[in-house]
Amino acid sequence: MFTEFINVGTELLLGQVLNTHQQWLARRLADRGYTVDRQVTVLDTGPDIREAVRAALDRANLVITTGGLGPTSDDLTRQQIAGLLGLELREDPEVLRHIKSFFANRKRPMPDSTCLQAQVPEGATVLPNSHGTAPGLAIEVRSNPSDPEQCPAWLLMLPGPPRELRPMFQEHALPLIQNRFPIGDDFHCLVLRTTGIGESLVEEKIQAPLRSLLESRLELGFCARVGEVDIRLSCRGKEAENRIREARTIIEGEVGRHIYGIDDDLLEEKIVSRLREQGATLALAESCTGGFIAHRITNVPGASDVFRGGLITYCNKLKLSLLEVRAATLSVHGAVSRQTAIEMAVGALQVTDANHALSVTGIAGPSGGTEDKPVGTVWIGLASRGCNPLALKQFNPLDRETFKFATSQQALEMLRRRLVFKSGGEMG
Amino acid sequence: MFTEFINVGTELLLGQVLNTHQQWLARRLADRGYTVDRQVTVLDTGPDIREAVRAALDRANLVITTGGLGPTSDDLTRQQIAGLLGLELREDPEVLRHIKSFFANRKRPMPDSTCLQAQVPEGATVLPNSHGTAPGLAIEVRSNPSDPEQCPAWLLMLPGPPRELRPMFQEHALPLIQNRFPIGDDFHCLVLRTTGIGESLVEEKIQAPLRSLLESRLELGFCARVGEVDIRLSCRGKEAENRIREARTIIEGEVGRHIYGIDDDLLEEKIVSRLREQGATLALAESCTGGFIAHRITNVPGASDVFRGGLITYCNKLKLSLLEVRAATLSVHGAVSRQTAIEMAVGALQVTDANHALSVTGIAGPSGGTEDKPVGTVWIGLASRGCNPLALKQFNPLDRETFKFATSQQALEMLRRRLVFKSGGEMG
Repeated sequence: MFTEFINVGTELLLGQVLNTHQQWLARRLADRGYTVDRQVTVLDTGPDIREAVRAALDRANLVITTGGLGPTSDDLTRQQIAGLLGLELREDPEVLRHIKSFFANRKRPMPDSTCLQAQVPEGATVLPNSHGTAPGLAIEVRSNPSDPEQCPAWLLMLPGPPRELRPMFQEHALPLIQNRFPIGDDFHCLVLRTTGIGESLVEEKIQAPLRSLLESRLELGFCARVGEVDIRLSCRGKEAENRIREARTIIEGEVGRHIYGIDDDLLEEKIVSRLREQGATLALAESCTGGFIAHRITNVPGASDVFRGGLITYCNKLKLSLLEVRAATLSVHGAVSRQTAIEMAVGALQVTDANHALSVTGIAGPSGGTEDKPVGTVWIGLASRGCNPLALKQFNPLDRETFKFATSQQALEMLRRRLVFKSGGEMG
Repeated sequence: MFTEFINVGTELLLGQVLNTHQQWLARRLADRGYTVDRQVTVLDTGPDIREAVRAALDRANLVITTGGLGPTSDDLTRQQIAGLLGLELREDPEVLRHIKSFFANRKRPMPDSTCLQAQVPEGATVLPNSHGTAPGLAIEVRSNPSDPEQCPAWLLMLPGPPRELRPMFQEHALPLIQNRFPIGDDFHCLVLRTTGIGESLVEEKIQAPLRSLLESRLELGFCARVGEVDIRLSCRGKEAENRIREARTIIEGEVGRHIYGIDDDLLEEKIVSRLREQGATLALAESCTGGFIAHRITNVPGASDVFRGGLITYCNKLKLSLLEVRAATLSVHGAVSRQTAIEMAVGALQVTDANHALSVTGIAGPSGGTEDKPVGTVWIGLASRGCNPLALKQFNPLDRETFKFATSQQALEMLRRRLVFKSGGEMG
């Protein structure tokens, strides 16, 4: 089986937009046992789309295009592919109804050009778009234009906007792929998600204990990002599920404290559900992370069950007035100190009446650093009812946004450990 | 001139790593008048690399490969390209010295395999790597393997790690490209960034007035994302700069109120700098956006000059206690109402002593909607010293994270209009 992606979009080749589809789609396919063999980005001009699709159909069983399904004059994927395959475009009344109601629901006038999106190549399967107007399209290409002897291939066209593409892929495209290209039930894959430990250390700790499994078809991979390392286990064959189960037990024995979830779990999701189970609530007092921790928590549906609120005390005055940090603490120890972090967390607990409060105070940079407290220095505080408050110092000398992510990860991990192990102090 | 990228790496096609090279390199080239025509990602196996390079040399004048120059067994780019072009690999003593001193400076032992990186195809130009061991390589391909009549092409091989690739590209590869393919000063490009208006409507408004310019070499493109549409103008030739200036004037006449910046400007950056110019400060009172607006504002370096802080009053109790919203307001009008939005903004202004305060209260979903106030309903309030507070209703029936972005964009735009036009009421 050969899979090829074709990302259509001049904006991608102009560097205006980052191509996140490649990684996102490849990851979803890989986790289900499909690998991607090739990816190409082309300009949204007719000949380039046509030539890329033609070449892909020469070698691939599954071709997935993204983009170029919109209503404007530079959206040509649908027309070009229909032309290449010699298929007529016909208005699909169902799709047209969806487009009209999409605009009606939003009380917006529908531009005439939008109707173009209801044009469907004859014989194509429509993949509904629950977050936009352009439907996805799936076409079985029975005889390849340049090699009529070849097996039928599947050509899937997905819309460019990620918020439309992602649910459409999960709900409609993936089931279709799994139906047309059954992988059998002998492929298994598990991702263990860790934080607070580096890639080399994880590898060092688990490689030797896993040796015999690795010699019997278990595959092990690592993916390190800022503040987290994924351990990916995959296996084919009848024993796949058992081998992965054994490997998981071994890895949990070695680095179990660092594992916060599996597969697509997010640290913030695990925290929200753990708080909910414990009937507990959370408050935040953020300075240098500027609301980013609250943003992560409130991305989780149902966060309102457990999240009281947050105080972003970006200036020192608000640390005093809103969180009741003492003026003496700021003048003696400074805003970036253990004492300030603790008083911020305790203040947030009192103001919001929550069960747990996290606080963060540090220097995100690029300016504001000193010799004692260089850019990247951060103190994270944690106060919980019935426990002594504690604070941890971290050093994240990274660009501003990466600093925020790394710091939020450390803060959330500190809270997770308190919720799971009733601790929270010892990290790393 | 035809430019093609070849990104080599199985990890890219497994979805383990996001390909950021494409955007980064494309943007650097586009800003200097070079456009990228095609990009392909291939597995790091020999035949795939060879075939991709062969096909690229058939059509391109400039081929840039990334990755596959490391010392491990899956790094094959250098060898495969030398093989394809029939060039011998020779150890370059200069490169070997650099590699040895790289390890010596870091007091690390040099693995034997690293010496492979000193192998240079005969006739290649070495691009020094100041952040790693693998040098970049530039080769002039005089006779194309499959078409000896074609003009010479340039093949550039760059290393995979961004921290090595980026400085090497800026310092060594780009000057070489500009020397080999002089562009002259007749290329100009301008992106106008808009918000509060849809892609089809922008196109409808500007297409006709721009017609004569579009007939004389001006190129127009759109890039729509949630809450924003970029209008990209580019032009070649002696009159390029004038044509773009004329087009800008026309577009400003049609949709000028929606244009918040140009090129890489971000809405939050424009707001921070506008506030700084006016010596004004900002506070936020967020409910359903959960800190995301504060996150965007604090992503801007120097935000602390103008941003006082934010109150994330996720539960109603905090709206009462922290923002002094009246209990009667909540019980009569509800938390998602004009009155609550206004009282939140006014409360934030008072608590923080800022000059402007934005408030947001709405239903992000997926649950919590009612018939009167369906998921996606949001009220945005704005209070400024010396002005009457105002509030706007918006409807963003989107997934949770997209809802947050769209809402933050509307809120920031409301503030921008107050800062720029002293208004803020009329949107759309």
